Amino acid sequence: MLLKELKKNLHIIEKVIKEDDFPASLEPRFLREAVTDYPLRGGKRLRSALLCWTCGLLGGDIEKALYAAASVEIYHNWTLVHDDIIDDDDFRRGEYSTHIKLAKAASVYTDNLQAQSRFGRDFAILAGDIQHSWALNMLLRSIELGVSWQTLQVLLAELQTTVNRQLVSGEALDVEFSYRDWEDITVDEIEKMLTLKTGALLAYCASAGALIAIESDDLNDPRVKKVSDFALKAGTAFQIRDDWLGIFADAETLGKPIASDIIEGKPSILFKEAISALPDKKAAVLRSFLNKPEISQKELDSIKALIRESGADCKVSQKAEKMISEAKSLLDDFPDSKYKTLLFRLADYMLSREL
Amino acid sequence: MLLKELKKNLHIIEKVIKEDDFPASLEPRFLREAVTDYPLRGGKRLRSALLCWTCGLLGGDIEKALYAAASVEIYHNWTLVHDDIIDDDDFRRGEYSTHIKLAKAASVYTDNLQAQSRFGRDFAILAGDIQHSWALNMLLRSIELGVSWQTLQVLLAELQTTVNRQLVSGEALDVEFSYRDWEDITVDEIEKMLTLKTGALLAYCASAGALIAIESDDLNDPRVKKVSDFALKAGTAFQIRDDWLGIFADAETLGKPIASDIIEGKPSILFKEAISALPDKKAAVLRSFLNKPEISQKELDSIKALIRESGADCKVSQKAEKMISEAKSLLDDFPDSKYKTLLFRLADYMLSREL
Repeated sequence: MLLKELKKNLHIIEKVIKEDDFPASLEPRFLREAVTDYPLRGGKRLRSALLCWTCGLLGGDIEKALYAAASVEIYHNWTLVHDDIIDDDDFRRGEYSTHIKLAKAASVYTDNLQAQSRFGRDFAILAGDIQHSWALNMLLRSIELGVSWQTLQVLLAELQTTVNRQLVSGEALDVEFSYRDWEDITVDEIEKMLTLKTGALLAYCASAGALIAIESDDLNDPRVKKVSDFALKAGTAFQIRDDWLGIFADAETLGKPIASDIIEGKPSILFKEAISALPDKKAAVLRSFLNKPEISQKELDSIKALIRESGADCKVSQKAEKMISEAKSLLDDFPDSKYKTLLFRLADYMLSREL
Repeated sequence: MLLKELKKNLHIIEKVIKEDDFPASLEPRFLREAVTDYPLRGGKRLRSALLCWTCGLLGGDIEKALYAAASVEIYHNWTLVHDDIIDDDDFRRGEYSTHIKLAKAASVYTDNLQAQSRFGRDFAILAGDIQHSWALNMLLRSIELGVSWQTLQVLLAELQTTVNRQLVSGEALDVEFSYRDWEDITVDEIEKMLTLKTGALLAYCASAGALIAIESDDLNDPRVKKVSDFALKAGTAFQIRDDWLGIFADAETLGKPIASDIIEGKPSILFKEAISALPDKKAAVLRSFLNKPEISQKELDSIKALIRESGADCKVSQKAEKMISEAKSLLDDFPDSKYKTLLFRLADYMLSREL
């Protein structure tokens, strides 16, 4: 049921994004293509589903929330375009990332690989800047669907004052981590970063759906608070689980190389907990994989074995499970409905999904 | 009178920007400082003055336009932060540009110069992204000053659909130029780029001031059209004049190195016109300076002499003068007022200013 409904939502949202003419007049062509690329590149569309289903949970008409739902997907994607430049990620959902695609488009202009890479970076910055604007314009269009100015004003302000600042601060913390001593970064700091980087936008999605449903501009309404906390908790659990998948999933379904966090020396809760739980000698073995340029299948197997042996595997899973259970209990007081069921399933899926 | 009023406007706008608490909660500190840096780094504040004075010209209360005026200054500055990364400009208004300042802040984390430069770039992308949001939030605050939702909705939508797309397209064209054959780029293309990159935001400033004054959401109102065209023409003339100053001003007052466009091989209308007007041999001499890593004082003198000899100096000046005169005639039908006089003087200043 969940996957079917997610797919249904995905089709509706993609149609809205495809039919919006915002990118149509952009020149040159490769910039226009870069602007529509990520927003139409699939993904699970959890953010838009969360927004629509929260709207449904509070008795709202989902049709009214469609532009806001498409908007959060585009908003999410501009941050991915800039993050991929900053994190030097060459892939996104199994395809080249925007700056790499644009670098390839530069071959018409120059054979110099360094110039191509520079070209890719520069146009990807601009593509993200335009997507940022596109997302806001899509949100503004909600007025056409009958969302009141009072609600829209809060949605706009909240996007600037809370989401943008938190989301970008989360990315900034993440970047700062890579310049700090791996040993000095605490599990709490990582969790804070994940909450800012992912939780803020998810909490916004839930609040937005709720406010549109109850035609309100009151972010302090207890119902709005509850769904927002639900999303924040589920989102953080999702990220913790994502760390786990980064090591235990297979590369093809993950859409990016396995153990890339370890290769890049990025701190993850799972790896941190494993190292602190293992005896010194084994911890040193695990630590030795950090920043290794490549990790063989055999090495990956011993990483997995050591993490399992440390008990971090279970500890981290339990932490995520606890968060999901707390998240779900926040929805208890809402009347039963198709959307309540979907949100419960969505929370479970965030935890259990095998990609 | 003009300079005094510009200064008065500057102080008011800086106070509004300084007192806004949007950046206050940003972490880490160097990111917060980067976000407030350009918006408080002075400059002439022509955009906010244009917005306020257009509001005054149409009989509006300037107080009501203050947040919109501060907003366009912040908006302008986020584009500068990203442009400076893309254009590799190390200086802005006589100080280090944002990515260079941030690279220096990285010395706490690493001694590696390449890593510092990378750090500077990454955080400057994020600083610009936050400023983008800050600008929109400042505009939203206009509602506190009594700007109606109808007007604000058009101002918000116009900022996304027209200003952002045109401004970023202008920068994209500019970047694309640097990958194209210098000879193939036409004067018309350069002019189009300048209009997009600078004119779009100036036209917006004028329209915004007008719409706030007449409490309207009608961009097609003839008065709004007229002030918008005024700003577009004056802005393009200003840019053409800026090219001229890039060669004929002195480095200290310009706030950046002289002839940097020639050193970087960037096409300018002035240089293009000079080369096409000179006899082959002299044109070849002038062309030989393109992409030279350094230009001596003696070489600069011969560049100036050749441009003067070509007549391009006069031709380009006349073009800018004609635009300013056309711009001013668009204001003829408005009743005389202090603001009409200021806008006339502003147009003259755009042409004649000796920095």
